[in-house]
Amino acid sequence: MTAKTNAGRFFEDYRVGQILTHAVPRTVSGGERALYHALYPARHALCSSDEFARSCGLPAAPVDDLAAFHVVFGKSVPDVSLNAVANLGYAQGRWLKPVWPGDTLRSESEVIGLKQNSNGRTGVVWVRTRGLNQRDETVIDYVRWVMVRKRDADAPAPETVVPQLDATIAAPDLVTFDGLDFSSYDFALAGEPHRWSDYEIGETIDHVDGVTIEEAEHMMATRLWQNTAKVHFDATNREDGKRLIYGGHVISMARALSFNGLANAQMMVGLNGGAHANPCFAGDTVRAWSEVLDKADTGAPGVGAIRLRLVATRGGEPFTLKGDDGKYLPHVLLDLDYWALMPT
Amino acid sequence: MTAKTNAGRFFEDYRVGQILTHAVPRTVSGGERALYHALYPARHALCSSDEFARSCGLPAAPVDDLAAFHVVFGKSVPDVSLNAVANLGYAQGRWLKPVWPGDTLRSESEVIGLKQNSNGRTGVVWVRTRGLNQRDETVIDYVRWVMVRKRDADAPAPETVVPQLDATIAAPDLVTFDGLDFSSYDFALAGEPHRWSDYEIGETIDHVDGVTIEEAEHMMATRLWQNTAKVHFDATNREDGKRLIYGGHVISMARALSFNGLANAQMMVGLNGGAHANPCFAGDTVRAWSEVLDKADTGAPGVGAIRLRLVATRGGEPFTLKGDDGKYLPHVLLDLDYWALMPT
Amino acid sequence: MTAKTNAGRFFEDYRVGQILTHAVPRTVSGGERALYHALYPARHALCSSDEFARSCGLPAAPVDDLAAFHVVFGKSVPDVSLNAVANLGYAQGRWLKPVWPGDTLRSESEVIGLKQNSNGRTGVVWVRTRGLNQRDETVIDYVRWVMVRKRDADAPAPETVVPQLDATIAAPDLVTFDGLDFSSYDFALAGEPHRWSDYEIGETIDHVDGVTIEEAEHMMATRLWQNTAKVHFDATNREDGKRLIYGGHVISMARALSFNGLANAQMMVGLNGGAHANPCFAGDTVRAWSEVLDKADTGAPGVGAIRLRLVATRGGEPFTLKGDDGKYLPHVLLDLDYWALMPT
Repeated sequence: MTAKTNAGRFFEDYRVGQILTHAVPRTVSGGERALYHALYPARHALCSSDEFARSCGLPAAPVDDLAAFHVVFGKSVPDVSLNAVANLGYAQGRWLKPVWPGDTLRSESEVIGLKQNSNGRTGVVWVRTRGLNQRDETVIDYVRWVMVRKRDADAPAPETVVPQLDATIAAPDLVTFDGLDFSSYDFALAGEPHRWSDYEIGETIDHVDGVTIEEAEHMMATRLWQNTAKVHFDATNREDGKRLIYGGHVISMARALSFNGLANAQMMVGLNGGAHANPCFAGDTVRAWSEVLDKADTGAPGVGAIRLRLVATRGGEPFTLKGDDGKYLPHVLLDLDYWALMPT
Repeated sequence: MTAKTNAGRFFEDYRVGQILTHAVPRTVSGGERALYHALYPARHALCSSDEFARSCGLPAAPVDDLAAFHVVFGKSVPDVSLNAVANLGYAQGRWLKPVWPGDTLRSESEVIGLKQNSNGRTGVVWVRTRGLNQRDETVIDYVRWVMVRKRDADAPAPETVVPQLDATIAAPDLVTFDGLDFSSYDFALAGEPHRWSDYEIGETIDHVDGVTIEEAEHMMATRLWQNTAKVHFDATNREDGKRLIYGGHVISMARALSFNGLANAQMMVGLNGGAHANPCFAGDTVRAWSEVLDKADTGAPGVGAIRLRLVATRGGEPFTLKGDDGKYLPHVLLDLDYWALMPT
Repeated sequence: MTAKTNAGRFFEDYRVGQILTHAVPRTVSGGERALYHALYPARHALCSSDEFARSCGLPAAPVDDLAAFHVVFGKSVPDVSLNAVANLGYAQGRWLKPVWPGDTLRSESEVIGLKQNSNGRTGVVWVRTRGLNQRDETVIDYVRWVMVRKRDADAPAPETVVPQLDATIAAPDLVTFDGLDFSSYDFALAGEPHRWSDYEIGETIDHVDGVTIEEAEHMMATRLWQNTAKVHFDATNREDGKRLIYGGHVISMARALSFNGLANAQMMVGLNGGAHANPCFAGDTVRAWSEVLDKADTGAPGVGAIRLRLVATRGGEPFTLKGDDGKYLPHVLLDLDYWALMPT
């Protein structure tokens, strides 16, 4: 027997400045879009209808923002998180170009930080991951950091480099897609009358609906992004026989549920941060609530930016997040901080 | 917390003559078709093969008739049936134009009838729903009526208007798609030798096969049509922890099962009526039988119309429908009355 | 009630030389590809990325080899295996032309062998099945044989004809697609550095990963190929309430799992043989291992052929296959022998 399989990288295998070329480029089509809409209750009109997208200045409906994100992210898993003990965070994520059906995406990551933990057995790796299309344009760009095991606890610690990461993306750094124009936006077709000016900083929204998660669904979703980390698929991998649901599945579910109350937050353009507060398993009924954190102008006609906290839970009281100990309450699954675009 | 979410319309919110513009237009592609064929054992050749469709005078295979119906129907749910206590019936449904991959569908409904129930707490709302494509052509048109809760039991009753609805669509009112021609129809490729003249009024067919329903499948199907009524997705919504399966899922399953014995009933063109006799839940094994109710000529070459009763059951004896009390037997899920086109 | 449903063919219904035209041609699209990648952890770059395929001399990414196989196979089920007691084997399978999104596939089979069993109640039927595209080009060609029930045990036995089938396809008979050229193959994008010359005959590879199978997934997959044999869908069909998983689902799962260690075995081009050693059911966790059986040159630039045994298991020790009695061990699901193409 040979050892040709990928055992994943260990902490010692990373160097600051290293570029990781992720494998398996992927051409997306209407098939990925249809599956995305079958897997999540996604209804934002801009990614559902070519006609609606044209009325907003785009040539056609782009692939859903999070679908594009998952494709880019999934490619990074074998090189970044196969031996990850924990996904610690996201920062400075931006959607830079639309992804169209027919585009081919690949991704690459640069190691931008390393810090061995005091226990000597694990370390934190920061990477900046870029998704590129067939024209070598960067379509998505984000930082994430993970805790990775060392292969050999006695290996020397690398020099500590902790990248300086702003907690949020400044509004002027958000990118609106070429041509985007909400000045003749159709609120009836979009599904809700609430515009950017109707939302106040501090306002909270309970998105009301819930979806009980099935094994078949989260596995199909996760495979669709060619994320094949075995914890998501192999029921024999944990002692309790549970398959851990890909955190991105919870993000997409919560974002889709947020349509009810945020139907006009059409596109994600910035990912400020995010925490997978507790693991999600099949049988959980996922719910979501949002809080308006900030608002900003953009240069595009009729287009405002809104910064939102999106929280996914499995029941529990909405608008509760952390306990007295500062830790996430057990029913909280996700705490995400993002910028979206809305008609003003 | 704000109340920006959609609580759905109550009985008092409808007026006869009111036009409801339904949200979230949708562009369909080969992705929706592939999913339809993965979710149902759909095998009618005309919607499976561009080449077969060309041999029948169409430029390509249209999107499956019921897939188009579900897209149109799904859009109406937030405005018509979110607070529905019951879906009471369908009438006068017609497929008027083919839907092609690439088309964008939207839908709108006109309120055509209102009748408050004697209990004062609910009322019946009749709507005529139209599905339109990006050229503003009506592709599907049907009436349905639902029982809706009142917000306030003390609100005054509206004037009662009960629309006159013919029990069936007269054969001359059926529309055959432009160019449709079954005169060089290939029965071997279609899968069965039985033509229109081989079916007799009163004949019954047991479609033999059964499919045991899974939660993941009906949820994916229902989401694909952007029908997000929570009863279908949230296992905490009912005391028994069951998710109610979208009635359209049962219609599609039964219609697909009817291929075995009705392989040449290629296209649905008229929906005379339908009752969701009993709720369907995951774990039920759905079976189907049909009865030939009528036959008629059409103007198109080689094309006959056949009127069929399609009954879906979860086991039980085929060809049994109602008990001595005139009520549907507990194993009956669906009793549908439709017109299809067949080669003569 | 009439008997218009398809009861399937019995042993007496076959004649050597008979051509069976299988029904329901199918146009494939990006939808089928996306579903294939959602249902299996398929990551071979050539079928995932148009750009990667172009760098290998093809005009675009073909539909996955096994997806094409399943479409062709599925059409043959109603005419060949609806009454099959057992699928006994495959031989001489070849992929002859790429299948592109937009192609329409149909299939037909020729009966090439018949042998009544000594019990008089069943017989073996050999067929050569061809998949054809809309240009009447054969894209896939293989032999399979099944054990089929007799309708009437007293019917006379046909003359025994047992086709001579070579155990493997000779390397010169393998077909490489027009234009295929691995001379500027990108190993980083493909996912592994191991090339044809790195594999030795006799070498074994444990593919490490496992996938726990769900009912919803195998049913969606099987329906996608329009294979509607009721054993796969109807939980009331067996006394134990289990649905038998389509053998092709296990083939696709194992082949996809084999990416981890054989990422560069990009395309299947020959199917020498295969046995479904034990039935697979939902809840099984499928794993895979491979053995290098042979290697050969091809005429195409930079392209080598590798002959592999692919074994799917539900746990158990890898590299164990048969017991002392010569029978497959209970944990072995599949023993497949195929040729693939790899960069040299």
